[in-house]
Amino acid sequence: MPRRVGVWFLGAGGNVATTAAVGRAALARGLAGTVGLVTELPAFAGAGLGGFDELVLGGHELRARSPVEVARALARDERLFPERLVDDVADELAAFAAQVRPGVAALRAGERDGPARVEAVRDELAASARAHALDRVVVVNLASTEPPPEAALPETAAALRAHVERGGATPASVLYALAALGGGHGYVNFTPSTGASLPALEEVARAAAAAHAGRDGKTGQTLVKSALAPMFAARNLRVRSWFGQNILGNEDGRTLADPGAGRAKAFTKARAVPSILGYPVDQLVRIDYVPGLGDWKVAWDHIQFEGFLGARMSLELSWHGADSALAAPLVLDLVRLVDRALRRGQVGALGQLALFFKDPVGCDEHRLERQLDLLLADVAAEPP
Amino acid sequence: MPRRVGVWFLGAGGNVATTAAVGRAALARGLAGTVGLVTELPAFAGAGLGGFDELVLGGHELRARSPVEVARALARDERLFPERLVDDVADELAAFAAQVRPGVAALRAGERDGPARVEAVRDELAASARAHALDRVVVVNLASTEPPPEAALPETAAALRAHVERGGATPASVLYALAALGGGHGYVNFTPSTGASLPALEEVARAAAAAHAGRDGKTGQTLVKSALAPMFAARNLRVRSWFGQNILGNEDGRTLADPGAGRAKAFTKARAVPSILGYPVDQLVRIDYVPGLGDWKVAWDHIQFEGFLGARMSLELSWHGADSALAAPLVLDLVRLVDRALRRGQVGALGQLALFFKDPVGCDEHRLERQLDLLLADVAAEPP
Amino acid sequence: MPRRVGVWFLGAGGNVATTAAVGRAALARGLAGTVGLVTELPAFAGAGLGGFDELVLGGHELRARSPVEVARALARDERLFPERLVDDVADELAAFAAQVRPGVAALRAGERDGPARVEAVRDELAASARAHALDRVVVVNLASTEPPPEAALPETAAALRAHVERGGATPASVLYALAALGGGHGYVNFTPSTGASLPALEEVARAAAAAHAGRDGKTGQTLVKSALAPMFAARNLRVRSWFGQNILGNEDGRTLADPGAGRAKAFTKARAVPSILGYPVDQLVRIDYVPGLGDWKVAWDHIQFEGFLGARMSLELSWHGADSALAAPLVLDLVRLVDRALRRGQVGALGQLALFFKDPVGCDEHRLERQLDLLLADVAAEPP
Amino acid sequence: MPRRVGVWFLGAGGNVATTAAVGRAALARGLAGTVGLVTELPAFAGAGLGGFDELVLGGHELRARSPVEVARALARDERLFPERLVDDVADELAAFAAQVRPGVAALRAGERDGPARVEAVRDELAASARAHALDRVVVVNLASTEPPPEAALPETAAALRAHVERGGATPASVLYALAALGGGHGYVNFTPSTGASLPALEEVARAAAAAHAGRDGKTGQTLVKSALAPMFAARNLRVRSWFGQNILGNEDGRTLADPGAGRAKAFTKARAVPSILGYPVDQLVRIDYVPGLGDWKVAWDHIQFEGFLGARMSLELSWHGADSALAAPLVLDLVRLVDRALRRGQVGALGQLALFFKDPVGCDEHRLERQLDLLLADVAAEPP
Repeated sequence: MPRRVGVWFLGAGGNVATTAAVGRAALARGLAGTVGLVTELPAFAGAGLGGFDELVLGGHELRARSPVEVARALARDERLFPERLVDDVADELAAFAAQVRPGVAALRAGERDGPARVEAVRDELAASARAHALDRVVVVNLASTEPPPEAALPETAAALRAHVERGGATPASVLYALAALGGGHGYVNFTPSTGASLPALEEVARAAAAAHAGRDGKTGQTLVKSALAPMFAARNLRVRSWFGQNILGNEDGRTLADPGAGRAKAFTKARAVPSILGYPVDQLVRIDYVPGLGDWKVAWDHIQFEGFLGARMSLELSWHGADSALAAPLVLDLVRLVDRALRRGQVGALGQLALFFKDPVGCDEHRLERQLDLLLADVAAEPP
Repeated sequence: MPRRVGVWFLGAGGNVATTAAVGRAALARGLAGTVGLVTELPAFAGAGLGGFDELVLGGHELRARSPVEVARALARDERLFPERLVDDVADELAAFAAQVRPGVAALRAGERDGPARVEAVRDELAASARAHALDRVVVVNLASTEPPPEAALPETAAALRAHVERGGATPASVLYALAALGGGHGYVNFTPSTGASLPALEEVARAAAAAHAGRDGKTGQTLVKSALAPMFAARNLRVRSWFGQNILGNEDGRTLADPGAGRAKAFTKARAVPSILGYPVDQLVRIDYVPGLGDWKVAWDHIQFEGFLGARMSLELSWHGADSALAAPLVLDLVRLVDRALRRGQVGALGQLALFFKDPVGCDEHRLERQLDLLLADVAAEPP
Repeated sequence: MPRRVGVWFLGAGGNVATTAAVGRAALARGLAGTVGLVTELPAFAGAGLGGFDELVLGGHELRARSPVEVARALARDERLFPERLVDDVADELAAFAAQVRPGVAALRAGERDGPARVEAVRDELAASARAHALDRVVVVNLASTEPPPEAALPETAAALRAHVERGGATPASVLYALAALGGGHGYVNFTPSTGASLPALEEVARAAAAAHAGRDGKTGQTLVKSALAPMFAARNLRVRSWFGQNILGNEDGRTLADPGAGRAKAFTKARAVPSILGYPVDQLVRIDYVPGLGDWKVAWDHIQFEGFLGARMSLELSWHGADSALAAPLVLDLVRLVDRALRRGQVGALGQLALFFKDPVGCDEHRLERQLDLLLADVAAEPP
Repeated sequence: MPRRVGVWFLGAGGNVATTAAVGRAALARGLAGTVGLVTELPAFAGAGLGGFDELVLGGHELRARSPVEVARALARDERLFPERLVDDVADELAAFAAQVRPGVAALRAGERDGPARVEAVRDELAASARAHALDRVVVVNLASTEPPPEAALPETAAALRAHVERGGATPASVLYALAALGGGHGYVNFTPSTGASLPALEEVARAAAAAHAGRDGKTGQTLVKSALAPMFAARNLRVRSWFGQNILGNEDGRTLADPGAGRAKAFTKARAVPSILGYPVDQLVRIDYVPGLGDWKVAWDHIQFEGFLGARMSLELSWHGADSALAAPLVLDLVRLVDRALRRGQVGALGQLALFFKDPVGCDEHRLERQLDLLLADVAAEPP
């Protein structure tokens, strides 16, 4: 009997989840190539990764949205993939839509049903696992970015549970992480939201033999930074400033135009450069919403650097990428890799997945090539 | 008694040699920082590298040029370094100027004095070593790029020497390499010219316990390529085309506007990307001469790549760099590293110096971070 | 009875002709907006221009190509317009296809049938006019760019006809211009080829009360130049160099990769800047073929300029445009405007159409706003 | 006896005033060319403009700053002009420094000495005119940008004076405008501050036969916009979004990093595009402070536009300009032109000077070429 792995998207009606669903179905049916999938590089051939046909999709979504309609709009208006591909995988998209539930909202201060919300999510995951005979579930947070919590959250599992119980304000991403990790599942935080990046949740994960990866998928400007900043370091060229502007027109852009959520994003985006260079850099990261761009993001970088004897030089970059097309294959990669890690008994923060994130949990390495080394060393180990 | 290492520049009156001379003197007198010098990164602290005050400069130059005047023009017109720095190191520049000789030209078909030319260079190096009590000499080719040889040159040392003897056309860079390597010296080919990149000269080097490094200093567009192309590989993003345009206004630009020399340059510039990606890429590299730019180079890259499910994306870069300010510290790095290698008994092509070159000899690695690993592994070994 | 105007495309199977045919049909049926059409600006409302439903398309094409298939590829692969629009206008495209004939080739030295070729084209135009009850025909040259003629062509109409008669080498575009203008038709040269830009053909046009416009449609980099160069002039900022690189992947790009045709193109592209600035500028224009770009063109400009007291500044531009989508509406504009001019009795080179061309015939004005003034003054005159 | 015109800078110690002072002296002594000066274009030859040696500089500055030291820093660190030029004009800079006084601050709500502050400035102008036998004075506002006033200011001269008298909050730029215009002088508002752009001050100017020009010198991104936006209009290409990012590192940048002042600036910068295109455009203008850039500004524009049949295209620009080198010659131009206007009896807002401003007073024209037409028509009239 084949293995079956559940994939539970938070933000199941969004562009990334929809693109991942289209892609998963297309790959399972041999209708798409493997470009963009890290786990399809030759080095991963013997790693014992699961097949795309083993993945069963479902998730939570607050808005009522049909994956087929979202997919059709992405094909027609955004040109992420051919319209005919949507027709070809319409059945799979319908099956996915049937597994989407409303989900839970953030706990506002004074609300007393926090534990019930966590319980509801955990029950839903368990029910899904039973219904589809799943070997395990990997929850993937693709929901809109939350503003950072106003106050620090408790540091231990017990204190965090008590905080929820007595109605302390708690982001939705934390409630979901509590449910997923407490239930022994995998959890991937592809957003800048808090998610599982708390000591308390690391403790929850370890206690339940769960594993998690995050934080904030590295799909564009930070990806380029993590490849380019090591160049300046290797050549002892002094970076004087690194200014990054992002403009985009999708839901994500609309959310990040909000100062709170934008601050969370700018925070995770700003980690790579000083970490790689080893000295503080005059750095700004801006994100602005330009509706007409749709799912496409234009990222402009202006880097000032100093060379020998004080010569002042600069480098500018313009990145034109389709956000969902960049994110979706990484989501599928991460599900496969978290599933493999759980099969191998790895628990807690999976630092070897730093390659995928702007602000990796369980790992301080931001240099892209070194992150690749970490991942390759892990997949070279005994397969599960 | 302190060690003394001779540095013999081919093209001693050019911008790079002049900037290196200004920089060496400024470093020796504590007037300049170490930005741009790879060998001043912390990892090189225990490698046993020689000091900048141990370097004695000289070289060959066909044109009559005063290093002080070239330096002053670079300061005033090109703003590579402050004008007052030229005043501060005027004595050292005068001492350098006193060690510059006319040098030899390429052997044209039928000319019979090839062996005499090689001998003359070898004598000059020996005389300089005696006069200045040098422990060794490192010849650095910074001369104008030569057109590629019209016919392949012989593959063995004996056949190459016979070719020169009977008046076979031979580039000047090869005559110099014969003299330098035959005399047991170090040889660095910082240009796209042939230099020591021939099996016959590797044989000469090994026979005389000489060592060499090359080819074509990696200072701008190719440097960026060697940092960025691995990003596309690591993420399985398919590069569809990589177009590179370079505009510059110095002597080098004027030389490369010549189709022959330009072809040599474009050849070494085009190696990195397909080597790193592992598949053929539709790639063009252009170099054009725009006089008003002076020593500054603007390099524009346009990269088309394909993402998941066929999405078409692109990245553009504009690099604004001062060529000589980028090259000069690498020249000083290479002299120190070749000197160290010779002290350690390393001979032939020094593959561990690939980090510095567009088309490295003795090494097939083009990924910048991997090249850095090779160098760091080498310097971590027992110092001489 | 409604008027009917014939539109006779040279290069009828190419991307521009096909896009124009799709657009004409879509406009006639109310399926498309007027974006990109100069003649649909409010100022043209009372000019007495003909309707899009009055245009009857036909033309010459050496290759066998179905407009429907070309249109479908432009929709699907190049995303110039929606695929469903091709279905909607399939009937019109089929009617256009039925009017496409093989055409004639350039006269090579010694070939004696030049007059017969001219005659054949003239007969074809006449037959088409009769068959479709056309009021007049406007021939539009959209064929692949020819290399510039090796020797200057004769200066008078009689001498040019004698040249053709005795088998003097003659570009195809000149043969077509002879036929079109000699027959009293309109002729638009949208390419850098010679076309009607000869004194001899101006004489032919005037004798036959024909009118022509050209040369080389201004669709991208030169359009921007003609808007931006006046800025430097108005502010007395001194342009030191203007470097322009174009990369594109369509048939046009393939043709222009040929040095001969490329030279013709670079020539017409280089006129605007020095003409506007009034002093010679260090200027280069490059065109390169990058197949993966398809019908899309990326144009990069690097402009160095000097400000007050010698400060050195620069401006860089990257233009991402779909060549055929930029050209096609101008083709429709030109047909309407040439038809109007003929109805008003204007003959010879129509200088007021300079706005549309890189190297305008009958007009020395390259500044875009001044060209617009010329056109607006003309359309403000008594309508026909 | 030669004419003498006073130039009274508000912000006399800043980079622009200093560069203007260096430039005026250099021009008067024949040490500098006329690049960057609009009034030195051939068309202005017969306009009866005053000479640079007729200008007598002075002004207000709250900070203690030596023009020689500011100039030296601009030469050495920012490379706006050669260091030796500062030596050559040191005497003139010292004479300028001797004419700089502390000036007055904004009136905060409840402060009762507003009329006294206006009087003090007026007296200072009158004293300067007497001391230097000036024919007239032109006040030029180059001071740091003020936040926009919190409440609208009164609409008539009498009401504005009453507002000041009873201690209503009043920006310093308005106090200066009251003094300058009330005294019959010229007033140029080169900043986004309120200055004379109020109906009440237009009334003051007309009553006292004074003239003024403004608002916010057009030196970079908006200059390019006013040249490029007409291109989209002329070709009926639909601009979907225009995003502009500015980064700079001088005092101006530091001030504009403050949200209030930044808002004022973004407001004046945002006028040109919709005004030229005639429809609302999704437009954002950002200004960020990047200290290492010094007086240099990098402006990045991303323009999305739609072509025929819905094709989506884009244009990106990167402008690298030295702010003070762009502004200073315009300041000298404006002084000469305002002086000429006053001699010719022109009063109130000088709309013909729109060419110089982001948000012109007395004129709704934003298209650069049309603004040039207005100015040329004015200078073609009978000289004073």
